Amino acid sequence: MKGKFAAFFEPESVAVIGASGTPHKPGHDVIKNILANGYEGKLFLVNPKGGEILGLPVHTSIAGLPLGIDLAIILLSAKDTAGALRECAARGIGHAVLSAGGFAEVDERGAGIQEEIARVLEDTGMRVLGPNTSGHASTPHRFTSTFFPLGKIRPGKVSYVAQTGNFATHTMKHILTAEHFGVARVIGLGNKIDIDESEALEYLAHDPETTAIIMYLESIKRPRRFLDVAREVTRFKPVVVLKSGSTEAGRNAAVAHTAAMAAEDRLIDGLLRQAGVVRIWEYSHLILAGKALSMAALPKGNRVSFLAPSGAMLVALSDLCVRLGIEVPDFAPETLRRIQEISPPFIRMRNPVDIWAAASVNGVEFGYREGMEAVFRDPHIDAVVAILMLTEDTGIPQFGFLVELAGKYPEKPLLVSFSGDRRYEEECKAFIEPLGVPSFPEIEQPFEALSILSRCARAMNRPK
Amino acid sequence: MKGKFAAFFEPESVAVIGASGTPHKPGHDVIKNILANGYEGKLFLVNPKGGEILGLPVHTSIAGLPLGIDLAIILLSAKDTAGALRECAARGIGHAVLSAGGFAEVDERGAGIQEEIARVLEDTGMRVLGPNTSGHASTPHRFTSTFFPLGKIRPGKVSYVAQTGNFATHTMKHILTAEHFGVARVIGLGNKIDIDESEALEYLAHDPETTAIIMYLESIKRPRRFLDVAREVTRFKPVVVLKSGSTEAGRNAAVAHTAAMAAEDRLIDGLLRQAGVVRIWEYSHLILAGKALSMAALPKGNRVSFLAPSGAMLVALSDLCVRLGIEVPDFAPETLRRIQEISPPFIRMRNPVDIWAAASVNGVEFGYREGMEAVFRDPHIDAVVAILMLTEDTGIPQFGFLVELAGKYPEKPLLVSFSGDRRYEEECKAFIEPLGVPSFPEIEQPFEALSILSRCARAMNRPK
Repeated sequence: MKGKFAAFFEPESVAVIGASGTPHKPGHDVIKNILANGYEGKLFLVNPKGGEILGLPVHTSIAGLPLGIDLAIILLSAKDTAGALRECAARGIGHAVLSAGGFAEVDERGAGIQEEIARVLEDTGMRVLGPNTSGHASTPHRFTSTFFPLGKIRPGKVSYVAQTGNFATHTMKHILTAEHFGVARVIGLGNKIDIDESEALEYLAHDPETTAIIMYLESIKRPRRFLDVAREVTRFKPVVVLKSGSTEAGRNAAVAHTAAMAAEDRLIDGLLRQAGVVRIWEYSHLILAGKALSMAALPKGNRVSFLAPSGAMLVALSDLCVRLGIEVPDFAPETLRRIQEISPPFIRMRNPVDIWAAASVNGVEFGYREGMEAVFRDPHIDAVVAILMLTEDTGIPQFGFLVELAGKYPEKPLLVSFSGDRRYEEECKAFIEPLGVPSFPEIEQPFEALSILSRCARAMNRPK
Repeated sequence: MKGKFAAFFEPESVAVIGASGTPHKPGHDVIKNILANGYEGKLFLVNPKGGEILGLPVHTSIAGLPLGIDLAIILLSAKDTAGALRECAARGIGHAVLSAGGFAEVDERGAGIQEEIARVLEDTGMRVLGPNTSGHASTPHRFTSTFFPLGKIRPGKVSYVAQTGNFATHTMKHILTAEHFGVARVIGLGNKIDIDESEALEYLAHDPETTAIIMYLESIKRPRRFLDVAREVTRFKPVVVLKSGSTEAGRNAAVAHTAAMAAEDRLIDGLLRQAGVVRIWEYSHLILAGKALSMAALPKGNRVSFLAPSGAMLVALSDLCVRLGIEVPDFAPETLRRIQEISPPFIRMRNPVDIWAAASVNGVEFGYREGMEAVFRDPHIDAVVAILMLTEDTGIPQFGFLVELAGKYPEKPLLVSFSGDRRYEEECKAFIEPLGVPSFPEIEQPFEALSILSRCARAMNRPK
């Protein structure tokens, strides 16, 4: 039998309990997802009606399954889940994903059923994810237990742990349709009756496919354990956490969501800080952080140079850097010389760089390319943000130079945003992101992303 | 002769000094812009070479122009600008837009030229916008002096005042290509040698075409005057200001930009607050505020209800509301009854609304429509945010119901964002925004926008 996490993330055999022939039902879509991802292990379907679903034979009972299947995905109603678990245990299945909702997050009765499941786990030694989880995903193993129709999940190197069904479903759909980065593992924790964030974090810490970990948490079940695990992980892998329910209003919403009454936020904040975890505050930054950590290196420090086509942007973004704790240092003399050299003499150049004069005199591509090359070379600079001006009237550059520069200075993150015509912004994103250069629609977002990257780097290099 | 601002915003005759036959030159593109906007007044072009440009005859000298033209747009180099101004004055032209850069924002010599222009203004009584301005626009009069190739500028009801050339150019291009709202007036202040933000604000205060005023400022030339004007305006029209250069780093960048050393930010902050001005902090919020103020009413109070397809979003966004000072109150009993009625019994409903259970049982459109109708009706609720779930697999609703609801409850702003498949987000935006319902790509943005709207409302209703 597979070890605890191998059974979830590298199962050689999987049973779908509650398989359905009806399209759009969770018991159907989960099978489609597994097939769409190209899962190469054995797949067993169980439904009392028997027959065939999507060309696969259906077992009429759990009892009829072969012994020793690695993982069961149980898509039955809450009240039928405990019984199915016991039957799975009887067939030597040691691990299960419990997809149904209707447990402690709903009412007393649900809480009672959840307690019953806890007893089954105690009796049988089974390990479960959920209940009330939308599932998990493991792209290196081409496997997923999510029942939301995602199709093929794009492989990548960041992993997500989420105390919400939303992540393995709608947010993942958004990432797949709006972004160009992928994921290694996604773990929907659900009500955390068994496997919790500390265990998930420990697994991902040692997962060679995962280079960075991003978590959405509404509560921390075992704060001491989490602190111990996180403190170690964050020395060699970035851990970014959105801990929501930080306010009274948020806590009220959290109770209704995953039955987790959030702990006092200030304590949590101190704990996360101690553990080297980088805390974020916006749901959309889960995606922003995922993109940045997928595509950019961690900077050596927090000294940025940025190039923008507008003095106003330079001023407003300089203010933003101060608010985010990002330094905008003076250039080394040779950098300043070069930047001045490519610009008309009547503009006084400095960091940040008003690149528009150079671009309008010498061409958009020349201005940005030469300006960026100069600042990339500067030993005072750890990261570069380019706000590209894209309008037909001033000329749309070939975007290849961005990819070349990013490749030439891989230790310095390059983050891109845009000004001008929306259409070319979309074109540029579609060109550079599959080649590993991240872009962001709002000009403030590269700086938010850089702040996350540099806080991750600082956490990794913090004193023992 | 026209009055001061009528000459700029409703000129019956305009002279372009430095007209050019060469495409992409400012002296050419300004003419194309004027024609593209359908300007109905008289247009005179001046270039020593004479001939014809874009089918219009060219005068070889300013001296050859008829007397009493309302406005001159001077696109000559900095050193030739003062002389041209004197010649304009000699022809009875009382108003001019000075487009050239190369003045006090650049060097001592430029500062000298700027002083010379100041002397011309003193001698002649001329009024000017700039120098170093990318121009202005007045859509009710189908006129613009911007030399950046924008083509037709979409008419609207918000007006912008910007101490940056970027606004009447690139940012306007972005608004025209990425957004669906338009503008009434846009005023690029440039170096503010004459007309400054106080005067611009005073004009817009009494401009019947302008319902809200948004300003980007790096300095305030006459703080006392600005305070006096703003204090009055903000009682009947919203005034939103991004005052950048609030930090040391930002101030350094500002010096290079429009030769304005920003005043001490804390003093400014107090001044703006006293004056009922709503301060914003992000450059991209200039656009966000413009959209919100163009499409949504000001709410009666700051009590929001929001509907999202994810418990995690509800929790994270509840936290955000607390940070933004937006209240998420309990529902009136009849609202709660209705929301519970459309949802499966096992979900405990409250504000904010986890709408996904209702949507998945009864259809996405039914869930959102009925849920939103219920919360719109609630007397405890001043504004509604809907995070729409859009994926093919769960069904894409007809978006008409959003427009109908917004029309039925015009006094309560409706702000929309999205979760799920990017493609449908774009489709929804393209459908609802031209019909007056604002949408935002990131789920936090409707709340940022609502915070601006409700701060505007509070400023208007503040005690005398």
